[in-house]
Amino acid sequence: MKQRRISKLIRIGTVNIGGNSPIVVQSMTKTDTRDVAGTIRQIQEMAEYGCEIVRIAVPDKEAAQALLSIKRGTHIPIIADIHFDYRLALATLEAGADGLRLNPGNISEKKYIAAIVRAAKPRGVPIRIGVNAGSLPRSANPKVSIAKQMVEAALEQIRLLESLDFDQIKVSLKAFDVPTTIKAYQLIAEKIPYPLHLGITESGLPRAGVIRSAIGIGVLLYQGIGDTLRVSLTGDPKEEVIAAYEILKSLNLRERGPTMVSCPACGRCEVDLIGLARSVEERLAKMDSPIKVAVMGCVVNGPGEARGADVGIACGKGRGAIFRKGEVVRTVEEKDFLEVLMEEVSKI
Amino acid sequence: MKQRRISKLIRIGTVNIGGNSPIVVQSMTKTDTRDVAGTIRQIQEMAEYGCEIVRIAVPDKEAAQALLSIKRGTHIPIIADIHFDYRLALATLEAGADGLRLNPGNISEKKYIAAIVRAAKPRGVPIRIGVNAGSLPRSANPKVSIAKQMVEAALEQIRLLESLDFDQIKVSLKAFDVPTTIKAYQLIAEKIPYPLHLGITESGLPRAGVIRSAIGIGVLLYQGIGDTLRVSLTGDPKEEVIAAYEILKSLNLRERGPTMVSCPACGRCEVDLIGLARSVEERLAKMDSPIKVAVMGCVVNGPGEARGADVGIACGKGRGAIFRKGEVVRTVEEKDFLEVLMEEVSKI
Repeated sequence: MKQRRISKLIRIGTVNIGGNSPIVVQSMTKTDTRDVAGTIRQIQEMAEYGCEIVRIAVPDKEAAQALLSIKRGTHIPIIADIHFDYRLALATLEAGADGLRLNPGNISEKKYIAAIVRAAKPRGVPIRIGVNAGSLPRSANPKVSIAKQMVEAALEQIRLLESLDFDQIKVSLKAFDVPTTIKAYQLIAEKIPYPLHLGITESGLPRAGVIRSAIGIGVLLYQGIGDTLRVSLTGDPKEEVIAAYEILKSLNLRERGPTMVSCPACGRCEVDLIGLARSVEERLAKMDSPIKVAVMGCVVNGPGEARGADVGIACGKGRGAIFRKGEVVRTVEEKDFLEVLMEEVSKI
Repeated sequence: MKQRRISKLIRIGTVNIGGNSPIVVQSMTKTDTRDVAGTIRQIQEMAEYGCEIVRIAVPDKEAAQALLSIKRGTHIPIIADIHFDYRLALATLEAGADGLRLNPGNISEKKYIAAIVRAAKPRGVPIRIGVNAGSLPRSANPKVSIAKQMVEAALEQIRLLESLDFDQIKVSLKAFDVPTTIKAYQLIAEKIPYPLHLGITESGLPRAGVIRSAIGIGVLLYQGIGDTLRVSLTGDPKEEVIAAYEILKSLNLRERGPTMVSCPACGRCEVDLIGLARSVEERLAKMDSPIKVAVMGCVVNGPGEARGADVGIACGKGRGAIFRKGEVVRTVEEKDFLEVLMEEVSKI
């Protein structure tokens, strides 16, 4: 893995982004923002799963005003997602937004940006320049690649913000096409000092969406690029948060809760391994500590192949071997596989 | 993306691997290999989802003999997964295996490898050297990194095969740790001309497993490394095949069936977008052609953001806009969203 690109540190509410800070997990609510109680409930659930910053759509004045009550009922920083109307940005700043996301594709005029900066700067509220491949500003040059057009759109707004003496900036360059997204982030990473918010846009329902997101975000993180991320899925926002942590855990960039090592099972396996693995996953779901648990389908390969696990089981016909760090510590009958494994887990 | 590493072309049955061939999707059966009917049924289902080569575990003689009947009942090439006992390799070659996978961690003696080569070579059957981080041969040097130990284990067996005048070789270097796996493949890609089989081992249940696999395999493919792949999941093998194609589709390396572009929905959305997207996915599941269909939550951003889609819908309150390639072609009432969209899909 490449060493992480060190970006300028900014702060969204109480959360640091960039510099040497851990890579921050964000997501977005899917409730009607004007439904204050429903939105608060969703934010609280997202926070339980580890969401560190939440973004909410602000399509109108009523939604902007709702932010005030939503802020009161929640404890993680809130970013207002603004399109088209700079006055909604002003209203959410007044309501206490911790961050703004602007789309250069629909708010780019200097006088509007200047009005937003005048309100954001004294409040210490950063602005994300959130470029989407599908809503590029009209000035974009159609002769160059989409990735370059996205970078150009971002750079133009960055220059505008800098000319207004504003540098609390974060940038995203999202496309549906994974190589386009990667290219865009690679290009801008060399040109600006600001932290980067990673994501693949419109990536679809979870089954395909997590894969598109994992590859796009994963390739960039592997190259040391990225300070915060949001996995966009057509699904429950907590699935976005879970996927975000799985991406970070896969690259050893964050720890959160248990990790399961489990083999795919094959013709060598003589128990219902998939069922056992599912039960273990369910039981582990309530745990917070970053324990690594292995569920392996055969006694012969199991303990060795899962040497890195803190505790595990290797299942044979009728009996299984419980192991710790690759060493077998006891054997157990099939009917007791789950209970004994969980007992060993609880000892750690 | 880096240009693809051009490897030596080999052939498993009727399927080319390496050279300039498309990246091949493999998976493995989870049935008891001795259950011939059940194994054939599973292979047929995997093939329906696009599995191009299937591997089966051969833990004993009976399983080796079953291969003969399994070959008769199926039409995609079959690789025998052999551990510990070289005689099982000989038996499966006799039974008609199209490929062998050997683990240098448990079969490495020259006389055994020589016996296998004597049987494989005249039959034109390639051998995969399948190194697993968890079952490294004893000779591995514990002072060097796991990635280097894996590469050393593979190189030793490659040299042995080459000394026996055998070059129908494929190599895999799988670990649970994603950066270790990536590093191992990067190292060996520069040292040998043979095709590489990618995978992350023991990656767990689908939710985490697809993410670990997508990042590990995705980073390598992005770097031009990899000729065939298997996604290992503690789950149904067809899920492995579906995930493999999603990985390849995300990087525009293969096409297969429809692709859905769908937004995550947010407070701007006034319909049940997730429900609609799921219904569309279900209806598209039966389609073969690589059509791109968009389901977008708002009229304002929708058509533009999904410009790359062949056909799509952008949903507003009570009404939606059907678009083709970003241009709105008709509007439709909410109750007709699904039917009209599918009607437009069928026109393409």
